[in-house]
Amino acid sequence: MPEVFDLKKAGENAKSASYVLQSLSREKKDAALTAVADALVANADRIIETNGRDLEAAKAAGTSPAMLDRLMLDKQRIEAMALSIRQVCGLEDPIGEVLEKIERPNGLRIEKVRVPMGVIGIIYESRPNVTSDAFSLCFKTGNAVILRGGSDAIGSNTVLVDIIREALEKVDITPDAVQLVTDTSREVAKEMMRLSGLIDLLIPRGGAGLIRSVVENSTIPVIETGTGNCHIYVDEDADIDMAVNIIFNAKTQRMGVCNAAESLLIHEKIAADAIPAICKSLKAKDIEIRADKKAFTLVPGSASDMKTATCEDFATEFLGPVISLAIVSDVDEAIAHVNRYTTHHSDAIITCNPENAEKFLNGVDSACVYVNASTRFTDGFEFGFGAEIGISTQKLHARGPMGLRELTSYKYKVYGSGQTR
Amino acid sequence: MPEVFDLKKAGENAKSASYVLQSLSREKKDAALTAVADALVANADRIIETNGRDLEAAKAAGTSPAMLDRLMLDKQRIEAMALSIRQVCGLEDPIGEVLEKIERPNGLRIEKVRVPMGVIGIIYESRPNVTSDAFSLCFKTGNAVILRGGSDAIGSNTVLVDIIREALEKVDITPDAVQLVTDTSREVAKEMMRLSGLIDLLIPRGGAGLIRSVVENSTIPVIETGTGNCHIYVDEDADIDMAVNIIFNAKTQRMGVCNAAESLLIHEKIAADAIPAICKSLKAKDIEIRADKKAFTLVPGSASDMKTATCEDFATEFLGPVISLAIVSDVDEAIAHVNRYTTHHSDAIITCNPENAEKFLNGVDSACVYVNASTRFTDGFEFGFGAEIGISTQKLHARGPMGLRELTSYKYKVYGSGQTR
Repeated sequence: MPEVFDLKKAGENAKSASYVLQSLSREKKDAALTAVADALVANADRIIETNGRDLEAAKAAGTSPAMLDRLMLDKQRIEAMALSIRQVCGLEDPIGEVLEKIERPNGLRIEKVRVPMGVIGIIYESRPNVTSDAFSLCFKTGNAVILRGGSDAIGSNTVLVDIIREALEKVDITPDAVQLVTDTSREVAKEMMRLSGLIDLLIPRGGAGLIRSVVENSTIPVIETGTGNCHIYVDEDADIDMAVNIIFNAKTQRMGVCNAAESLLIHEKIAADAIPAICKSLKAKDIEIRADKKAFTLVPGSASDMKTATCEDFATEFLGPVISLAIVSDVDEAIAHVNRYTTHHSDAIITCNPENAEKFLNGVDSACVYVNASTRFTDGFEFGFGAEIGISTQKLHARGPMGLRELTSYKYKVYGSGQTR
Repeated sequence: MPEVFDLKKAGENAKSASYVLQSLSREKKDAALTAVADALVANADRIIETNGRDLEAAKAAGTSPAMLDRLMLDKQRIEAMALSIRQVCGLEDPIGEVLEKIERPNGLRIEKVRVPMGVIGIIYESRPNVTSDAFSLCFKTGNAVILRGGSDAIGSNTVLVDIIREALEKVDITPDAVQLVTDTSREVAKEMMRLSGLIDLLIPRGGAGLIRSVVENSTIPVIETGTGNCHIYVDEDADIDMAVNIIFNAKTQRMGVCNAAESLLIHEKIAADAIPAICKSLKAKDIEIRADKKAFTLVPGSASDMKTATCEDFATEFLGPVISLAIVSDVDEAIAHVNRYTTHHSDAIITCNPENAEKFLNGVDSACVYVNASTRFTDGFEFGFGAEIGISTQKLHARGPMGLRELTSYKYKVYGSGQTR
């Protein structure tokens, strides 16, 4: 590891590599990915040993058991990482796809062709499997990638990237297809966010604080990912059993994820029936419900089941055993509430009324809007993309689950025979 | 005009308006655009009078004749603005288009549907016709727009936006579909660049300095537009007459525009024949050629026709009667040179060799890459889009000429029947 990490040099190396990677055939890329998957499994002991040192350091620093678990790699998890890479081999290569052909009256023939982004920077926290996942998705789409993981996983990430680079070299592919920023200081991260001209796209993956910092500081195009204050609106015409099921699933199936439900909106006419059933179901998982005043009025005796919500609760992504609840008087009020508080990730309506469903689907300004299904389906695999690099909550370029295609751009190839204007 | 411009309020108004605009039918939008076009023509005198005051102030401030001409509005130009709007009426409405349908094994039905961006901010310089153009394109695509023009055109822009808003109100459409930032201070411009959550996309239109400032300061997704250091590479196997014609057109047809050629690359084997012909042709328009040393060696006697280039010349978008020239030894060196100096706008190869053409088209990392045609064709109208809001030089979201579709995003509408994970 060099004493001073030369980020500009890394950017230049990545840019050079990207010009080679963009024209690799699918066969060559898949063969290289297979070699990388094999190498990870073959080097499992080496990975586990280094990961053990990261774990010890993290334990000594008082890291929580949940975070330690996220950091930990064992044989099974390494095999899962390799399997993920092998699955990426099985996916279509989107590069080179002709998206559109235009013939102009002057004889110009224009082809809009899918090309790689070039160099993608990924800034992420904790989980070392992001290292191999991000590499495989960027590589499959002909992009070079610069990875900047968290300091707690620096040893694990370094050995993973070393193994990937060694495997690439063995199959005659430039190892600069992937580089790790080994200096995990904030200064270098900020420098990375301003490497315009060398990095074409920056994707932050992690908590709200990390994402905000990247959005604030980057001069490179960014895709915001992953904060999800997801709503479920139970309409006047909802099937209450279905609502209870979906809410239970969306809130409790996995609480720390971005597509988990964080806020309930209940139509005032159904509140007296729906709220007790919802309370009973969520109580089984010790979920605290924070409700507005109207809920207590509409459901006498609910004071023992719910706490009083503050305004802030409605804007909070709890990522834990808490959910907010507000009463609304119609679907329009529900839509207005969602658009005020949503992070534009995933929101759902439960209703048997197709008109209200369509109103909600069209009116709510989020990446994924559901009728009668759990918000937990917002996921590249659940959508059938076969992969996922993150979930975009912005509207530029990609929205919702991002698979391979979302890591690409396009160019216009124009064929002439001497045309001038 | 209020004493202190309340930008946050403008953003909130735009956001509210965007929720109404997103569901307007094409018929309603086209009727409103027609009303706006009619109103501009009907109010021509009022516009010309205010524009006259802008012109007087600009003259007093010592503004150049070229800039005064850009600022000036007369009856003919106002009619041209109205005609542009009428042409936008004739274009297909992209909103609501179903881009993809996915059926999942669990019965979920997913529709990827084209939707507006929401609120678009446009920061631009000088030409008041951008005011009506930007409004019409944003409006047609169901977006609200916040315009921030230059201080020299503030009177003209204010009256134009007033007329548009009056016309919208008359046809019962929220006038907040368009708002003008009437405080043209830099502070308010910077505030606008940080209005995350209210503005969804920022498009700067103007010189390199303006664009850099937006990219540096914005926390909102930006599309970089319009700087063009465009190259023309004359290959070993080029038709010299065609090369001369294309170079003459690309350099001289309009010199101040982003798709004009700024740099020539000549294969060493064709230099002795090509360079004298190019010099002769460009001399007719008094174009200064700044060449590298090799050019002088390969073409004896050319010292009277060319000046010596500095390294900086190859990185310069002259936007005037100057062009740089470098000798390369093959198409690979040409591609490497372009990728080093290009602003990723438009670059061309002149060749009869299809293999070299394809190599150049694939290897050059620019929005539009041409074989045997002028770079001047990079334009929304020339591409057949029927409109243009700018030319993107970044890879995220949109690349090259941006028409109506490039002002849209998408959402996923997911139809379930009680599915949980």
